[in-house]
Amino acid sequence: MSTVSNSTNIFWQDCQVGRPERQKLLNQKGCVVWITGLSGSGKSTLACSLSRELYTRGKLSYVLDGDNLRHGLNKDLGFLPEDRTENIRRTGEVAKLFADAGLICVASLISPYRRDRDNCRAMLPDANFIEVYMNMPLQLCEARDPKGLYKLARAGKIKGFTGIDDPYEPPINCEIEIKHDDGVCPTPTVMAGQVVTYLEKKGFLEH
Amino acid sequence: MSTVSNSTNIFWQDCQVGRPERQKLLNQKGCVVWITGLSGSGKSTLACSLSRELYTRGKLSYVLDGDNLRHGLNKDLGFLPEDRTENIRRTGEVAKLFADAGLICVASLISPYRRDRDNCRAMLPDANFIEVYMNMPLQLCEARDPKGLYKLARAGKIKGFTGIDDPYEPPINCEIEIKHDDGVCPTPTVMAGQVVTYLEKKGFLEH
Repeated sequence: MSTVSNSTNIFWQDCQVGRPERQKLLNQKGCVVWITGLSGSGKSTLACSLSRELYTRGKLSYVLDGDNLRHGLNKDLGFLPEDRTENIRRTGEVAKLFADAGLICVASLISPYRRDRDNCRAMLPDANFIEVYMNMPLQLCEARDPKGLYKLARAGKIKGFTGIDDPYEPPINCEIEIKHDDGVCPTPTVMAGQVVTYLEKKGFLEH
Repeated sequence: MSTVSNSTNIFWQDCQVGRPERQKLLNQKGCVVWITGLSGSGKSTLACSLSRELYTRGKLSYVLDGDNLRHGLNKDLGFLPEDRTENIRRTGEVAKLFADAGLICVASLISPYRRDRDNCRAMLPDANFIEVYMNMPLQLCEARDPKGLYKLARAGKIKGFTGIDDPYEPPINCEIEIKHDDGVCPTPTVMAGQVVTYLEKKGFLEH
């Protein structure tokens, strides 16, 4: 029995089918793969490639895409700093539920502020939060500009755009770093392979 | 490419591994089993029993418990009408994600207002929202009072308690109704069986 800040009379319900049973059913361990990086750095590409690679191994993953969530759960939020923080907080809470459900949850969000990411990490047992930093130079991301957003930001038509007039704070101790090689990015398969190798080594691909 | 109300420049990301692939992996179809009813009507009992029954059949479910969510995703919300509505909306959005992930998502919340429940139903393809109404008389729930909340509400120590000084609006066209028999409730196994039979008949337990 416990109470929480905003509401007393809230009781924690436990079920006989828990995380261990679900992980056994799936033959994997639940975790959160949190992909952070600038717009255009390849987060979604990696998320898709990773979910495909896991699927071919019979593993269940689910991608939480920052943009997609803004159509649903987070559609009441804008881009003010407090909205960005709440956006990340909710995504972290949902990712935690998916990990608890036994899935490999792949969260793909710019998530520019270190503190917001660290708050999500703190929600989970440490080893279950795997931070993947897309370490791509701004020039490369801006040259790609897959959504045409850098152009708009440079023209002043978008305010507070990460990398242009809002900061991106790189991770200090991330689990995985995806690097370019002199401006050349690894292929989606190579990037996904890097993450899968990590998951395998850490025992997430068996229960 | 699309835009949403609160934020332009949001793009929908599609992945090659989608709901059909996940459902194939799990050999089931994703859906939301939404259990509504008074406090003490047996919602959590049914949710647990159902997840156990599904597990023995090798099916993956996940319980979203209203009280548990108030410790995490919804911990910023209280019990004012607009907070209750937002609580249900977020739960519905998360349930939708779980159904999309291929799971049988069991949401267990008082969810007293018909409009809030119908809004959640509207988020999903109609057949994927299965409303289960715990049709138990107030006297029975109050006699059970497993959390001692009715006692507090009657003493005026909790305001706006559903069934006492806040309305419960029963579903009009729910998929499943759990009834008492002259004040005697069905056992957890019988209740779960009623839902499993429905899921089986509608093809949710195969892909």
